[in-house]
Amino acid sequence: MELHHVGIAVSDLEAAARPYYALGYELEAKDTVESQGVSVYMLRSGHSRLELLAPTRPDSPIGKFLDKRGPGVHHLAFATGDIRGELERLAGEGTPLIDAAPRPGFGGHLVAFVHPKWSGGVLVELVEAAH
Amino acid sequence: MELHHVGIAVSDLEAAARPYYALGYELEAKDTVESQGVSVYMLRSGHSRLELLAPTRPDSPIGKFLDKRGPGVHHLAFATGDIRGELERLAGEGTPLIDAAPRPGFGGHLVAFVHPKWSGGVLVELVEAAH
Repeated sequence: MELHHVGIAVSDLEAAARPYYALGYELEAKDTVESQGVSVYMLRSGHSRLELLAPTRPDSPIGKFLDKRGPGVHHLAFATGDIRGELERLAGEGTPLIDAAPRPGFGGHLVAFVHPKWSGGVLVELVEAAH
Repeated sequence: MELHHVGIAVSDLEAAARPYYALGYELEAKDTVESQGVSVYMLRSGHSRLELLAPTRPDSPIGKFLDKRGPGVHHLAFATGDIRGELERLAGEGTPLIDAAPRPGFGGHLVAFVHPKWSGGVLVELVEAAH
């Protein structure tokens, strides 16, 4: 698997995108995932993507993260062509999964989160995507 | 500019590398930067790199980060072919730089940090590298 994007919690998408535009990133797509209470800007430069995540309501997972930790990196997402197969493999190795089954995320991609205690405090997401 | 690596603060390099090995990453290089009091594993999968950073002494920048925040993502590094030119351009736009001039970092690459207040709490590093 390879890095798909870095997820970054922000309070204001436009303001948060500005420094990355200055580094050469462009807006690839926008989305809102109502079930997660989050609005998203996906920024891209070459092979790399930054996913800016702003809460649509304060009690959403990103809203609570901002309250507790402030803005900053929220998760690292890795691309796989077979998310169900990878989840099964990781679970078989004893990996603590937050999502045992994938669910729809940004842009309709299937996603699943691994518990950060597995990865030294880093929240890891799997994304079913070509890259 | 494009993402060069994600820098992750860890207390034990071998233990911290294990989950990323399980995701398909391989050890690309090891280094110790004595001036920064840090030992480094650079992990790679395809176009993406993860830089694991462990302190060689508790009063080093990474040692202090671990003390204050615990393990987790420390910085995002972006590659440029001309770090001096980029620093000049960013400074001209009023960007608050931690390092106005580049200094040697991992593997002898020139690096410079931008103040996280510029980028919503995210510590941004520039690295002079092809990619």
